Amino acid sequence: MKVCRTISELRNELKILREQSKVISFVPTMGYLHEGHLSLVRFAKNNSNICVVSIFVNPTQFGANEDFNRYPRDEQRDLELLKNEKCDFVFIPSSDEMYGKDYQTFVNVKKYSQILEGEFRPGHFEGVTTVVLKLFNIVQPDFAVFGQKDAQQAFIIQKMVDDLNVPVRIEVLPIVREKDGLAMSSRNVYLNAEERKQALALYNSIQLAEKFLKEGERNSDRIIEEIKKLMLQYPLIKIDYVEIVDKNTFTKIKEIEKDKSYYLLLAVRIGATRLIDNTILKV
Amino acid sequence: MKVCRTISELRNELKILREQSKVISFVPTMGYLHEGHLSLVRFAKNNSNICVVSIFVNPTQFGANEDFNRYPRDEQRDLELLKNEKCDFVFIPSSDEMYGKDYQTFVNVKKYSQILEGEFRPGHFEGVTTVVLKLFNIVQPDFAVFGQKDAQQAFIIQKMVDDLNVPVRIEVLPIVREKDGLAMSSRNVYLNAEERKQALALYNSIQLAEKFLKEGERNSDRIIEEIKKLMLQYPLIKIDYVEIVDKNTFTKIKEIEKDKSYYLLLAVRIGATRLIDNTILKV
Repeated sequence: MKVCRTISELRNELKILREQSKVISFVPTMGYLHEGHLSLVRFAKNNSNICVVSIFVNPTQFGANEDFNRYPRDEQRDLELLKNEKCDFVFIPSSDEMYGKDYQTFVNVKKYSQILEGEFRPGHFEGVTTVVLKLFNIVQPDFAVFGQKDAQQAFIIQKMVDDLNVPVRIEVLPIVREKDGLAMSSRNVYLNAEERKQALALYNSIQLAEKFLKEGERNSDRIIEEIKKLMLQYPLIKIDYVEIVDKNTFTKIKEIEKDKSYYLLLAVRIGATRLIDNTILKV
Repeated sequence: MKVCRTISELRNELKILREQSKVISFVPTMGYLHEGHLSLVRFAKNNSNICVVSIFVNPTQFGANEDFNRYPRDEQRDLELLKNEKCDFVFIPSSDEMYGKDYQTFVNVKKYSQILEGEFRPGHFEGVTTVVLKLFNIVQPDFAVFGQKDAQQAFIIQKMVDDLNVPVRIEVLPIVREKDGLAMSSRNVYLNAEERKQALALYNSIQLAEKFLKEGERNSDRIIEEIKKLMLQYPLIKIDYVEIVDKNTFTKIKEIEKDKSYYLLLAVRIGATRLIDNTILKV
């Protein structure tokens, strides 16, 4: 496993491999890796000749009042985990390497960057799409792997790729959960013992929605109302949003129809920590 | 010479050639080709194995009150001219092919898209950078060739390529002029006989600046004032701007210094026609 810290270093390595027609896969991360990330790396490794993982806590996707500075980092541990997965290249650029002097260029997937997460985190998706496009241009992978945990992010990146004709295939893999159902997240480390308990409100909400669906409920507003009622039982939880959207258009819907797919999207704050979760709904 | 009208058709052709390690060059145009365009095609052809030219009057770079609908088009003539230059592929997509349903993604080179041309044509450069990035992703050329006639456009595209790590080299070639000095432009066809005469104000302004420079004038404001005075002698001309900027930063300057390069940038309206011109100033 080779660690590259500059764009030119990584490019030189990959150029040779690309000329040998190696299939190159790519997993962009912000580090502090957990089993969710590692499931993406395993898929990437199993479906390519060369697996590249990036670790970059991207400043442009954090708002001024968000957790950029305290976002957890542990490079040594990350490198050991990636070595265990037989990852081929780890790209760990500095902010200066990624955003040199007088950086000016940003990518926007307009409509979809304003809603849901975009409403609560203005500018977030602009930072995400910009850094992901930069990383795609640096790595030029055959495919890149993202987690369903950030469902709107995966949707927006696929939309960017389609709109801008980016020659990269996008793969989205299922959420990996802790034993009790909490979705894996680097931010879970922020939670104290009581917050960690109440964070189960998210998984319990998903299970409640699935129960209602099984019992025949098709009205999305009623499912959302029941989830909001459930959340009230967790006094530390403050809801940002609970929504059900069409999986292919990310637009809110009234009725859940047969043979279509939907996302139940959840975003809450628990103390100073903001957590998101989601599941695919289908009948 | 092969004409492709769909993205997949062109991609399939180029994929095979790329695997054969052919050097691919690209000249994006809006068609209605003149000697300026053809000089770019000749350079592209002479420095690559495969030369791709696109013809696409890009709707997103025209303002609501601009000349998108009446922009001159002559596909048959363009194809003959490109055949004569032994161009290999001509890509002529429809607007639907480039901007399918629910198009959302735009690229912005923020600071530099607001000034000069950007001030007089809001949204113009967003349309330019977006379509150029799309075309780069479709063609994936080794290098792309642009004309210095649109100096700010070339600067902004180079900035986008640097910022987003786009793996394409940018070449900028000199302005080609008519015998009397008018810069070649597809829009020159809009001019009536009297407007065509007065359009020489642009080239005469460039010559005046060069004369002042040769005589030792180093103050950019004084050169600009003299040009504006000269333009007053052409009653049909309305000035949008006359500016001198550093060639490397596109920022306005006070004094012309030795061993540095500058652009004298001119934008005027003559009747309903808007023309731009420029020259590199150096002492």
